[in-house]
Amino acid sequence: MAGVSLEALVVTSLPNITYLTNFTGSSAILVLASDVAYFLTDSRYVTAVSATRGTAWECPGLELVVVEGSYDAGLAQLLSAHGFKRVGFEAAHLTVSRCRWLEAHLGDESSPVELVATEDVVELGRAAKDAYEIGVLTEAGHRLSDVATRVLSIVQSGMTEREVAFAIDARIHRAGFVRPAFETIVASGPNSALPHARPGERKLTEGDVVVLDFGGVYDSYCVDLTRTVAIGRASSRCREVYDAVLAAHDDAVAKVSPGQSRFDVDAAARDRLSLAGMGEAFGHGTGHGLGIEVHEEPRITRRRPDVDARRELLEPGMVFTIEPGAYFPGWGGVRIEDDVLVTVTGVELLTHVTTELLEIY
Amino acid sequence: MAGVSLEALVVTSLPNITYLTNFTGSSAILVLASDVAYFLTDSRYVTAVSATRGTAWECPGLELVVVEGSYDAGLAQLLSAHGFKRVGFEAAHLTVSRCRWLEAHLGDESSPVELVATEDVVELGRAAKDAYEIGVLTEAGHRLSDVATRVLSIVQSGMTEREVAFAIDARIHRAGFVRPAFETIVASGPNSALPHARPGERKLTEGDVVVLDFGGVYDSYCVDLTRTVAIGRASSRCREVYDAVLAAHDDAVAKVSPGQSRFDVDAAARDRLSLAGMGEAFGHGTGHGLGIEVHEEPRITRRRPDVDARRELLEPGMVFTIEPGAYFPGWGGVRIEDDVLVTVTGVELLTHVTTELLEIY
Repeated sequence: MAGVSLEALVVTSLPNITYLTNFTGSSAILVLASDVAYFLTDSRYVTAVSATRGTAWECPGLELVVVEGSYDAGLAQLLSAHGFKRVGFEAAHLTVSRCRWLEAHLGDESSPVELVATEDVVELGRAAKDAYEIGVLTEAGHRLSDVATRVLSIVQSGMTEREVAFAIDARIHRAGFVRPAFETIVASGPNSALPHARPGERKLTEGDVVVLDFGGVYDSYCVDLTRTVAIGRASSRCREVYDAVLAAHDDAVAKVSPGQSRFDVDAAARDRLSLAGMGEAFGHGTGHGLGIEVHEEPRITRRRPDVDARRELLEPGMVFTIEPGAYFPGWGGVRIEDDVLVTVTGVELLTHVTTELLEIY
Repeated sequence: MAGVSLEALVVTSLPNITYLTNFTGSSAILVLASDVAYFLTDSRYVTAVSATRGTAWECPGLELVVVEGSYDAGLAQLLSAHGFKRVGFEAAHLTVSRCRWLEAHLGDESSPVELVATEDVVELGRAAKDAYEIGVLTEAGHRLSDVATRVLSIVQSGMTEREVAFAIDARIHRAGFVRPAFETIVASGPNSALPHARPGERKLTEGDVVVLDFGGVYDSYCVDLTRTVAIGRASSRCREVYDAVLAAHDDAVAKVSPGQSRFDVDAAARDRLSLAGMGEAFGHGTGHGLGIEVHEEPRITRRRPDVDARRELLEPGMVFTIEPGAYFPGWGGVRIEDDVLVTVTGVELLTHVTTELLEIY
């Protein structure tokens, strides 16, 4: 902030606010000044914030400001009251509407306030996890792996996708997660060709491939895992696709190390699928960062002219998914996903579930 | 669009896109031109969109555009390819970052493209529901009421908040909802003083008041319901607070009719609580609109200088919650919430659950 002469930074991204303060509610604005952090929230959350006082969850240096009316009016009032003249905001987390409203309501002709767009100030700190965060993600990875192992033992032919999804969610809750990290995917037979299928009333049937993709939020941090199983004896086509995706998964994991290009990790998976003649069947990126958000930096994607190429190199502490897949409309698809941590020397898996192709009878 | 000389409108709000097209995935941009709607999505959703062709879910006039790289690059390419010179965007649903990027990548000096901020173009259509939407919300209200009635019969002293929340979520799923509309709230004893408490490991104990607040998404539409119960015999203080909140709820519901001010509906609840000396204990608004989002227009809130006072009057077809509450830090709180529909002549409840204070033994 000092480097760009900002007197204050307005943080409007809730994940960034959670990262900086431990707040997990749905509405707040944080204003970071040089020696104090003003925390604007409304009456719904006052008791919750006050209850952290004196606990390990307390955010030091926080000054609570209760918003009575609209948040942006409260923000304008606070900024004016402190006479800030040059204030940064998060350009990726403030809409054009709100920015224009603030511009119209801050300062006056005799005492103008300059709003300065910033990018990724807090996100830069979030990309590489510290020891506490790695501890949480490691524990979360163990718990999600246990969920996966149990789930693989209860999936049965004849269950509907929704029944399986609900059984997964129940185990995610029982394993101590606050909630699923996203809507659980159970995609059977031809539905498995849709990487983001919603579980429906289709029954798991002999001959199906079934993609199971689920995650959990543990102590504010997200983990994410996918396995693909066969109902009944796997066809040779199924084995061929599965083996190619697993080889792509293994190659990508093996490529991960500090200083490595995230684009080259993606290329490792993509090249292996292309060798098997399945390059076209892999339409999405190889992985995404995990943390307070289930999709965050770093993005393990193709190097392309229209992809942001900054921060290309992996760093120790980064945590992300490796999840190549191959999808064939009408037939189905296979995806295998694990979570990895970049260590000082290489890579460590945070999820521990068999990658053998399970045939469920 | 013609009135403000726009050749195209870029819709980036996902709920607005769902409203206009029935798409329920997580990534898409819709570009409305005079005679065609361009639907930009990525490979993950192509099969899902194609599968609606020829069904009742198909959106007529939709031209599918598959985005290969970033969405905004795909958008810039599409707008350039069609030579649009004056393009509207949703100022409340586009960040400053994205807007600046588009400005830098659209057109050139010889052929500039003007980006025009718009507000509430699609939202205006969403506030009053049509017959189809009312049918869905009515069915959803019946189903959520059934869930509530069953839940009230299974809550027991000794269960933890999380166990109750999980039982509620299980019934929400079984009742045919796609998912809970928000994280289910089960707040017992002193926790009930937090309007947005998260369910924890606290056990329901004799003498507690317990707030149960939950909702479901049914066929893309959200409903929302709250009841407060006593564990064991209700204290006289509990009855006093409950009766005041219920009277506020009833007064607000009675105030709802077409042409009525939404601020006066809020005032009806607030005045009744003030009469009981509990005005200060009611910190939030009386209600919020329900639809594709669980919080949308109209907002049933206090009339205040910093609250947007446009669209003040209720119209037939509007659906919203009535949910006054009174919260006392240390003691607990009471909230009672139903969903209402503004009819041509007055008001209709969409939720049907006893409002008697239940004592659970």
